[in-house]
Amino acid sequence: MKKISLMGATGSIGLQTLDVIKENKEQFKLTAISAGRNIAETKKIITEFQPQLVSVQLKEDALSLRNEVPSGTKIVWGEEGLLEVACHQDADILVNAVLGSVGLYPTLQAIEAGKTIAIANKETLVTAGHIVMEAAKKHGVDLLPVDSEHSAIFQCLQGENQKDIESLIITASGGSFRDRARSELEGVTVKDALNHPNWSMGAKITIDSATMMNKGLEVIEAHWLFNIPFEGIKVLLHRESIIHSMVEFHDSSVMAQLGTPDMRVPIQYALTYPERLERPKAGRLNLAEIGKLHFEDMDFERFRCLKYAFEAGEAGGSLPAVLNAANEAAVSRFLNGEISFLQIEALIEKALEKHELIKQPDLDTIKLIDSETRNFIKKVSFN
Amino acid sequence: MKKISLMGATGSIGLQTLDVIKENKEQFKLTAISAGRNIAETKKIITEFQPQLVSVQLKEDALSLRNEVPSGTKIVWGEEGLLEVACHQDADILVNAVLGSVGLYPTLQAIEAGKTIAIANKETLVTAGHIVMEAAKKHGVDLLPVDSEHSAIFQCLQGENQKDIESLIITASGGSFRDRARSELEGVTVKDALNHPNWSMGAKITIDSATMMNKGLEVIEAHWLFNIPFEGIKVLLHRESIIHSMVEFHDSSVMAQLGTPDMRVPIQYALTYPERLERPKAGRLNLAEIGKLHFEDMDFERFRCLKYAFEAGEAGGSLPAVLNAANEAAVSRFLNGEISFLQIEALIEKALEKHELIKQPDLDTIKLIDSETRNFIKKVSFN
Repeated sequence: MKKISLMGATGSIGLQTLDVIKENKEQFKLTAISAGRNIAETKKIITEFQPQLVSVQLKEDALSLRNEVPSGTKIVWGEEGLLEVACHQDADILVNAVLGSVGLYPTLQAIEAGKTIAIANKETLVTAGHIVMEAAKKHGVDLLPVDSEHSAIFQCLQGENQKDIESLIITASGGSFRDRARSELEGVTVKDALNHPNWSMGAKITIDSATMMNKGLEVIEAHWLFNIPFEGIKVLLHRESIIHSMVEFHDSSVMAQLGTPDMRVPIQYALTYPERLERPKAGRLNLAEIGKLHFEDMDFERFRCLKYAFEAGEAGGSLPAVLNAANEAAVSRFLNGEISFLQIEALIEKALEKHELIKQPDLDTIKLIDSETRNFIKKVSFN
Repeated sequence: MKKISLMGATGSIGLQTLDVIKENKEQFKLTAISAGRNIAETKKIITEFQPQLVSVQLKEDALSLRNEVPSGTKIVWGEEGLLEVACHQDADILVNAVLGSVGLYPTLQAIEAGKTIAIANKETLVTAGHIVMEAAKKHGVDLLPVDSEHSAIFQCLQGENQKDIESLIITASGGSFRDRARSELEGVTVKDALNHPNWSMGAKITIDSATMMNKGLEVIEAHWLFNIPFEGIKVLLHRESIIHSMVEFHDSSVMAQLGTPDMRVPIQYALTYPERLERPKAGRLNLAEIGKLHFEDMDFERFRCLKYAFEAGEAGGSLPAVLNAANEAAVSRFLNGEISFLQIEALIEKALEKHELIKQPDLDTIKLIDSETRNFIKKVSFN
């Protein structure tokens, strides 16, 4: 039985991770979770899974929870609580499914504690890939991807040699606005942007999917996870999201992983790796029913966030942290109705232009750049 | 350097195997070949590759060749010559690319001699899968598929566990007549049938592709190569032949191998396995350029040969040998202009109906059934 610690339990990936655990009670035991401010959902999880340890964001929520849950569950809070969850002594594997860069430090601590990491949090690798990968190597820890694209690549690489890789081909559905020209994006609303054609995901990642920044972050993440230079990473528009990603080898063979869009499949693979575990027969891929799969070249002028991501990734150092923080802050302003959809890109571009590159930023520097960038984005006004 | 013995050097797969050897002279050395009656091509090969041993079909061809080639090349002939090629002492790997069931006995002898077998000859496994697989297991010999479909499945299975396989999904282009209804097949000519939309192959296999018997033989071959029951093998129409085949795992993940239709890729993979070797960049897969991939369910009434193959495979024993011999003889009669395209199916059906199943036929029995079936097919007349 694998014991699982889950950061970000009440988010979209967190809840689907719980589905997988629930479906396979003989294989998995949930030992610790962290949640943010969704206390109602947290209570449900405690009742159902009875984890040993629960951390929430706020002290007051933690204190009131203590009175409501069985005494077998320890309740903690804040950054310290998150760390305790990440490094819970009983856990074999840490699922990092928090949103944003808050997962970075706890993940590093979990690596030092020798935990296998199932990583669904893009920012951890985007902002500090050089630190995280070095730590994983040093402590001999597996970093298992949860994202469907990286899971696909990881599966394509099983039984293969790194030296035989020609390129990684990451597929992109195109997001909510894939059928609109750039000129048609002027007046789009938050509601339009949240209407993703294939995947049911959280709000921030759905916007990132519409701007294609999601794919940009995935490109940077893939660079670190699979140790492939940026010129060896391609992005292909594939509207059906059936081929989750591919690897081209230098003998010209291309391996691909396919499936219906169901995040529980890559989540489960990360939890069972290197084994696979049977999933329900319902909702299996039926290509004859789907009939056609479509592919198009990516337009880097149409989707400028992707271009910025490649540029920030290539430049390296502190630039991906700027990219990520600027994006988080700009998306937050868009979701609050403060800026238009295209102004997300414009803000990110401003932040990248303004930044002076630091080559090997340490954790404190990354943290500082993160907060400076957010402050900068918050203050920019459009007239 | 791997030393290669090649049976069927002047056929389509044979010549492409020679291309691969030529492209990678530092990796491969051709030590022995067999050829049929194409002596002009055989001479060219001898001049270019200077193999130690050459076997041709007829004694008179062998005797006249002896006077024309350098003394370093030993020339032999007939069944005995073929055996000598198969078991050539210097060879590490035997590529079995002969047409029809003539490759069976030499392949078994090569297995006993401990050679790795790269198998492009379907009939070897179709007619005697139970004997060949047992021999390979007993002598610890790898059977490496060369067919693009089986190579795709083999590649999808690298790094995976047999117990996790849900099904094999073999793709089929549909052959020359895929866009015609059954009623439109009445008057088709040999020339029409030889016009395959995707692959450039020999005549017999191109007809097998049009009747879908090729796919049927591949299903039986896949059953033996991958030890999967027939209910776990699916056939999917995929007109572009870009996805060469797939494996569905029981966690609902599907792995696929893709590429442009170029047999040199799977041939090379069999020769370099478990490594990959760089191939020229030209002609690489470009999915955006292709734009769409199509998939359709297989119609077993439209393509009855495939139905017969599944039935013969399920029944097992001697029936696949009947299927194969009946098909070879019927296709030969079609190519000779003696029967119509749809009469190929009709003849095969007659042969299968007439046969009394033998459960575990030995080699002699298979040989006998093979020749009895051919004789039967030759004699059937249509009024």
